[in-house]
Amino acid sequence: MGTYRMDLSYDGTRYSGWQRLGDDPETVQQKIETALSRLLDTATQIDGSGRTDAGVHALGQVASFSTAKPVVPERLAAQLNHYLPGDIVVLGIAQAEERFHARFAAKKKKYCYRLWNAQLPSPFHRRYRHHVPEPLALKTMAMTGKMLCGTHDFSGFTTMKSKKKSAVRTIESVEITLNGPEIDITLVGDGFLHNMVRIIAGTLLEVGAGRMTPAQVEAVLKSGIRADAGPMAPANGLVLMGVDYGSGFPSGPEDWKGLSSR
Amino acid sequence: MGTYRMDLSYDGTRYSGWQRLGDDPETVQQKIETALSRLLDTATQIDGSGRTDAGVHALGQVASFSTAKPVVPERLAAQLNHYLPGDIVVLGIAQAEERFHARFAAKKKKYCYRLWNAQLPSPFHRRYRHHVPEPLALKTMAMTGKMLCGTHDFSGFTTMKSKKKSAVRTIESVEITLNGPEIDITLVGDGFLHNMVRIIAGTLLEVGAGRMTPAQVEAVLKSGIRADAGPMAPANGLVLMGVDYGSGFPSGPEDWKGLSSR
Repeated sequence: MGTYRMDLSYDGTRYSGWQRLGDDPETVQQKIETALSRLLDTATQIDGSGRTDAGVHALGQVASFSTAKPVVPERLAAQLNHYLPGDIVVLGIAQAEERFHARFAAKKKKYCYRLWNAQLPSPFHRRYRHHVPEPLALKTMAMTGKMLCGTHDFSGFTTMKSKKKSAVRTIESVEITLNGPEIDITLVGDGFLHNMVRIIAGTLLEVGAGRMTPAQVEAVLKSGIRADAGPMAPANGLVLMGVDYGSGFPSGPEDWKGLSSR
Repeated sequence: MGTYRMDLSYDGTRYSGWQRLGDDPETVQQKIETALSRLLDTATQIDGSGRTDAGVHALGQVASFSTAKPVVPERLAAQLNHYLPGDIVVLGIAQAEERFHARFAAKKKKYCYRLWNAQLPSPFHRRYRHHVPEPLALKTMAMTGKMLCGTHDFSGFTTMKSKKKSAVRTIESVEITLNGPEIDITLVGDGFLHNMVRIIAGTLLEVGAGRMTPAQVEAVLKSGIRADAGPMAPANGLVLMGVDYGSGFPSGPEDWKGLSSR
């Protein structure tokens, strides 16, 4: 009985995204709600911290739900993992404050865009990293990423259609790390517009390949003209790493285990 | 024209293994032979360094083939990668000595058995690592692995049925490395019997969980009784890392690139 926080990971490859879509059973939300409703024996809806698009992955997605049924969090998590397919894993369930809402309470989000930067694709990373065969100017990319940090109107970096909603967001950091052919572009911000991370990644790739200059990216930030930014990078490289509700990002399995045993 | 060496990687998840099986199109050998025969415009067979079983992966499998057709190795590799599905990647093709045969010329093989050792499974590693939720006594496992090194009759660690063929093999090294929940058991030897690596991995897991003692494993080495060894670990954790033809194991993309441009 009460409101609960659920942390979860999923391989988004075969899903039409997070959000329930009519009767499409192949969304992550739909899979979880079906299992949860069966276990709690009553129709139960969950709210995610945000939608992830078709093919996008999550290491640390967070959802909230309320129920009048009695819940033993650890047991419910284990039962859900029993019923859910192997590409969705509940990391933990913990009772939360009555008012907790995974979307409205989110303070920061961390996304990672992952590349496989080698001449040949990798059969093992192709579901989780976007293959980029050309050499990349990583320092210029990092410099451009830094320029995007701060509070800006990101109209040029979104496919959001509404002109009424604000496109102002704050990016706290853009970091590029390297481990052999594996390159990770990690972004932390107070929120991201629709497709914003993938368009930023696609734009940084244009800079890395020498097809755009950092000055051109700065111009897009000022003009807000989407067509002048780079293309949207493919979904398979994107991972929602975590959501910060004011006490930092969960840093790994220990935190999630802690969550479920709280 | 001549004999060629082909290095390749594959994600074995959806294949019935390496070896051509009648008309089963879902074997790695069949996929490659079909593409190669089409490109060379004549039925062309390849010989692998060894068979990998259904679901087993390869980072550095090697195959050989002979042809009377003219071949530009780099171009043929690129064309094959164009026709092959994304879970098979040709790393390089190089002309070899006329007598080269990927199986008969192999001096050493390196296999890695990969574990995901955490309470919860990982949606991202489930195709490539065997999930072991229980804590493992890694030092005892490493000690037992060391004991298996050397030249022994490995009859107790194979599902090979023939009693006529020798089960004597030499294991050069068994190393266990750790990176968070990722544990790798790497074996180098002059050759491995059918299912030998998976049975050794399964036996080491019994030791790690405290269900078998190193002394019991030593007894199996002496008795040759398969039933006394541990169970065969699942296919998804196994990767053929590389084959040594006398000049060492290829150490990464640089070597393969070198191969294809030789």
